[in-house]
Amino acid sequence: MTTTTAAFAPDDLRAIAERMRNLDICMLTTRDGHALATRPMSNNGQVEFDGDTWFFAERDSAKVRQIEADPAVGLGYIATERGTWVSMEAQAEIVDEDGEKRDRWFEDLRRWFPDGPDADTVVLIRARATRVRAWGADGDLDLRRGS
Amino acid sequence: MTTTTAAFAPDDLRAIAERMRNLDICMLTTRDGHALATRPMSNNGQVEFDGDTWFFAERDSAKVRQIEADPAVGLGYIATERGTWVSMEAQAEIVDEDGEKRDRWFEDLRRWFPDGPDADTVVLIRARATRVRAWGADGDLDLRRGS
Repeated sequence: MTTTTAAFAPDDLRAIAERMRNLDICMLTTRDGHALATRPMSNNGQVEFDGDTWFFAERDSAKVRQIEADPAVGLGYIATERGTWVSMEAQAEIVDEDGEKRDRWFEDLRRWFPDGPDADTVVLIRARATRVRAWGADGDLDLRRGS
Repeated sequence: MTTTTAAFAPDDLRAIAERMRNLDICMLTTRDGHALATRPMSNNGQVEFDGDTWFFAERDSAKVRQIEADPAVGLGYIATERGTWVSMEAQAEIVDEDGEKRDRWFEDLRRWFPDGPDADTVVLIRARATRVRAWGADGDLDLRRGS
């Protein structure tokens, strides 16, 4: 079984980062009891992918409670107009650290979090990918952490 | 708990169909053991939404096996360039009926299924939505079957 302690191979990370360039909105899927709940989430599409994807979230939100109950999440990126699709299987955790929140903040987020990264009501979700797949004009990828 | 026997209200179906217009590629999430697996899937974006979404799939595929093990799926549509995002919680089942396969076929599918709808290796996935959410410039929706 793939664990989240191993890293992606450097060449794999570069290949994933290339596909992820400028992809911002993804669909984040969590388990909601026996159902699978999906919603659009914004990451910072300008940051080079290093294996983790970070999202800001309201502490008092269904997705945070769902991740606390079951950390398995799925991420899906669709950019049909560019012929690029990326999916990730990931293990998520809630991170509530002021330094991380400030480091990860970008101003586009203010439309959803008007009080900014210092608000106590805001937390981070860190989604640590264990498997990344991509499809598109540049060929398909299927890469696993630690392989 | 929402069951899949009740229908969406007619006004709700119209509102969903409006958001779904011309959305073709979605991310379909299934449970793969303890992980959540996501991959892009093509439906027929020209068909008016009636509560069910249909996909063609290889009978011998991971997604078919995963749905047979756990029918809860999530669907996510991203059309950032149009400011439209749609998600569905759904219960899926595998349908292997020649008439349905022919009725649901559209020629764009031939790039993935070169032998067409009559091939024994091809089945349908019917995803019956229990909850549909949409976000975007036209406002947000959160609609449930039977409510």
